[in-house]
Parts: sequence; C-alpha cells; structure tokens
Amino acid sequence: MRKKVRVFAPASIANMGCGFDVMGLALDEVGDILEMTATDGEGISILNETRVPLPSDIEQNVITRVIRKFFAMTGLQAQIDVRVCQKIYPGSGIGSSAASSAAAAYGMNELFGGPLSEEEVVICAMEGENLASGGYHADNAAPAVMGGIILIRGYEPLDLIQLPVPGNFYCAMVHPGIVVSTKEARQILPKEVPLHDAIRQWGNVGGLVAGLYSGNIGLIGRAMQDYIAEPHRKQFIPGFDELRAKLLDAGAMAMNISGSGPSVFALTDRREIAQKASEILLAHFNGRGIEAETYVVKVSNKGAKLLAQ
Amino acid sequence: MRKKVRVFAPASIANMGCGFDVMGLALDEVGDILEMTATDGEGISILNETRVPLPSDIEQNVITRVIRKFFAMTGLQAQIDVRVCQKIYPGSGIGSSAASSAAAAYGMNELFGGPLSEEEVVICAMEGENLASGGYHADNAAPAVMGGIILIRGYEPLDLIQLPVPGNFYCAMVHPGIVVSTKEARQILPKEVPLHDAIRQWGNVGGLVAGLYSGNIGLIGRAMQDYIAEPHRKQFIPGFDELRAKLLDAGAMAMNISGSGPSVFALTDRREIAQKASEILLAHFNGRGIEAETYVVKVSNKGAKLLAQ
Repeated sequence: MRKKVRVFAPASIANMGCGFDVMGLALDEVGDILEMTATDGEGISILNETRVPLPSDIEQNVITRVIRKFFAMTGLQAQIDVRVCQKIYPGSGIGSSAASSAAAAYGMNELFGGPLSEEEVVICAMEGENLASGGYHADNAAPAVMGGIILIRGYEPLDLIQLPVPGNFYCAMVHPGIVVSTKEARQILPKEVPLHDAIRQWGNVGGLVAGLYSGNIGLIGRAMQDYIAEPHRKQFIPGFDELRAKLLDAGAMAMNISGSGPSVFALTDRREIAQKASEILLAHFNGRGIEAETYVVKVSNKGAKLLAQ
Repeated sequence: MRKKVRVFAPASIANMGCGFDVMGLALDEVGDILEMTATDGEGISILNETRVPLPSDIEQNVITRVIRKFFAMTGLQAQIDVRVCQKIYPGSGIGSSAASSAAAAYGMNELFGGPLSEEEVVICAMEGENLASGGYHADNAAPAVMGGIILIRGYEPLDLIQLPVPGNFYCAMVHPGIVVSTKEARQILPKEVPLHDAIRQWGNVGGLVAGLYSGNIGLIGRAMQDYIAEPHRKQFIPGFDELRAKLLDAGAMAMNISGSGPSVFALTDRREIAQKASEILLAHFNGRGIEAETYVVKVSNKGAKLLAQ
C-alpha cells in the first residue's frame, strides 16, 4: 500500500471565558498542515519543514502519540511518514498541540478509509493533549476536529455538543511574546472555588449557550465573563483590565484569555470592530515593549479537513 | 377608586438539577389564587380563605412585603384588601412563597394599569422571597411571574432569559409529608466546592440549555444531574437513590429535588410515563409510612395571569 493525504486542522480558543474547561471554538485559516503517508511496514517518522522548533525525540511529539493511539483503537498497523508543513507556535494559547493532534488523528482516519467516527477522532486527538498538558482535555481538540463551537457536556462518557455559530462572529486575537506555561497557569487555580462564584459561572455558561442559539450578541458578550480562572490568570498579561476597557470602548462584545494564555481575544459581530480591536491589541503590547502577532479571523464552522496535494 | 382583580400564579420548580440557583420552571394548573381590591386610602388587609395556615401577623406574610415594595417602586398608594382563595402548602418545595409573591406583584401591577415591566414585576415579587428565605432569589419568582423555563444569568443587574419549553414536557411531582427547612437545606451546603465538580456542573448547565433549544430530550435528561446540592440534600429524602433508579427504569428522563426539597420530580416527554412515575413516587413514600401528594402536570408557558372574577 501507499497512500498520502494533506490535512489541515485549525487553531482554537478554549474556555471562551465562562466556559472554563467545557467550551472551545475553531478559527478560520490559522492552523497546522501535515502531509501523511502510509506504506506497508511499521514505524513513524516526522519531518519538520517549518521554522517552529519541535521535539527532536519523536516520542515527545504529540503526533506520534496520536498515531499510536489510532493503531490501538483500530488494530491496524503501517509505516507512517509525516511532514509538518505549517505549525502554530507552541505555547501561544491557541491550541497548538490540539491542531497537530487533530490533524494527525483526522489524517490517519482518512488514510485508512474512515474507521473512526468523528467523536472517536476527537478521542484519538485527545491522546496528544494528554502528552502536551497531562490531561485528556477536549476543549481545543474537539473544535479542532469538528469545527465551530463545541460544548463538552461531560467526559464520562465524552458528550460533545455542537453549538450554533452566529453568522457574523469575528475574532481579533493577539499572541504576545510572553511565555505562560500551561502547567503554571493550571497550578495557580485553586482546587476549591466559592459556591457563590461557581453559581455565577454556570449562570453565565447557560447564558452563553442561550445567546449562541438565539443569536443574541449582547447576551453572548454579557455571559462570557469568567469568575473562576481569569482572576488568577490575568496577572500573566500586563495591563489586562486596561486592555479590556479599551476593547469594550471600541465596541467589542467581550475580551477573554484564550485557553491558559498568553493569547487574548476579542469577539465582535462586525469586521471593522475586529480590525480596530486587533490594532488596539497590537498597540497595547507594543507600547509595553512586547512584540505581538495579531489575527482577525471568523469563527470557523469547519474543523479538520483534507487539502489538495 | 375601587378596582378588583383575581390573579393566579403557578407553582414552580427551582434548580432543575444542575441549574442550582439559576434556573426554574413554571407548572400548569397548580398554584395560588388571590383576589385583590384597591380603594382610596392607605393600608393592607389579608383574609385567608384557605385551610393552609398563614402568619397571623400580616407583616410576616410575603404578600404584605410585595405590596409595600410595589408602592415603593411606583410612588403610588392605596388601601389594598387581599383574599387568599387558593394556596400551595408552605414548605412543599414547589415555590409556595414565590406563587404568593408573584400573584401579589402581578395583581398590584394589573390593579394600577401596568406601571411595571415584566422584569420589574419579578423584582417586586423577589421582595417576598427575601422575607421567606432571607435572600433575593428569582429561581421560583421569575418562572412564577413569566411562565416557562427561566435562566437567571446574573443578578447584578438581574438578567432573565426565557428558554424554550419542548412541546411535550411532563412533570410527575410528589410532595411527601416530610419537613425540610429551606434554611437548613441551604446551611448544609459547603461554602466552597471542588473546582472539578463545579466544572462538571457548568458543563451540565450548558448541556441543559442546549437540550432545551434543540429539543433534545436525551440531552436534557443527561444534563440535569446535579453534582453540587443533591449529594448534600438527598439525605433528607428517604430512599432517594433507589427512587431515582425506579423512575429511570420506568422511562423518566431525569429525577431531581425541587428547590431545596422535600418535593421531588421526574421529567418525561410522554404523559403515560409521567402517570407511571407519579404512581412510583406515591408508592415509594407510602411504602415508608410517609403520606404524599402527587401531581402530573405539563410545564407551563404561562406564568401569573388574571382570572375571571
């Protein structure tokens, strides 16, 4: 046998504010591209054609874990050669490991004629997330595979719910040149939270889901406030409160940390506000002597996909 | 002046499992009926024509507080004479104080030509809840006024969201002859909750709202599980876990405590299952030597309303 696919999986934003650990959305255009070739035999090779540094030991690469998981789930076996053609910078907080994992899982499933369901592809991709962050999280992996906005209702068993994406839903995003370790960002969170704050958080999660179904942009904006993680994590992002005030003044409906940071994003239903927001995001960090990369993207309804070779 | 209205406000179920303190639904048919008369002057009288015991000091009756709140909100004044014609038994856990408060607030607004918006009527009714439970809760008061299923996204400011009610949504409910004090049921809850449980809870709240919008009965049932209050409160209800198992076996999609109890309810999309569930509920408590009253009702889209005089 010899089969080859070229696959894309998008960047993603976990949490969406209030939906800490249970929600994520996929972004248009930005993402990872892998070329995967299956031939007879047994083994894995990974060739990095990007300028993004990847682990030299392929056992430490999420792609390897996902490929092994796919074989464990399906009972199949082959030699898999991977070329990494495009890669989100690791540690950016927009689901870099999830994009690789989702692309690898989706690509494997395509190479072998689709033995896994979409949900099983997510489970396969979550194996990569486990290597990257020490836990089976789906809040980046599920949107990276499935696209759109995903609610992870529960993990036992995995219950993924595709939520509606409002027609105009733009995201201005900044990746500032700050290092925030996912591990540290997780350790800083308390093991217990005040019941009062937890109640406000699930009121907001309910409001966010209602806002997405009803297309009520104002409600979405009000509901995205995070009472649990953000108060602890915003310290990693210089001038966080001031930045939010500037973005809301400019008409953005919400600003939140993407995943565990350091990327932050603003949501809006108007492209020109998203454009303005990206300028504010860039100026905010540059003004503090911090380099930053910005993107203006739509929320994508499409997750992992095949590309023309 | 002399004006008279006859008003109904329904019983309600607070929490709906996972939606602890943020969700409630209104029930058809069961509820309070008040006759309210406004004449020139200043003062309040309450005549109890039911066999349900009410406080002899009218300052301890929620109706009085609601009437005073209405006058404070509107700057109006009059003599108000109230006849309580039908009353849910207090302490039943199906929103007895909220039904009186909602009927009083709605009735006052009707007597004076509707100076308050629907949301303001809820705020007025919440004054009665504050007397009854020492807090400005809306999880019974809002559905009792507005009908249907209400999400209280937040309190600062009050943000009420009317959620869709699936077409067939039956409730089998039991009020067992056990006394559970709302105060004790609240005090038994921890002030802090494990982050892990809080996350599972807001995954479920998101899932429940998604299930209501999409009419996905299976999802609604899976999502209603309460990880926060139920583990502490179920001890007040003899044989709770066994009862749930029997109801789910009979096809109910969920069973939960109504508010802080002792009433419990089962939800289903089929009337015959609701009927069967009500028999199971009755037999369960009677078999333990506990008297119980059961109801089979639809979830109502109509809250407080005028009745013919």
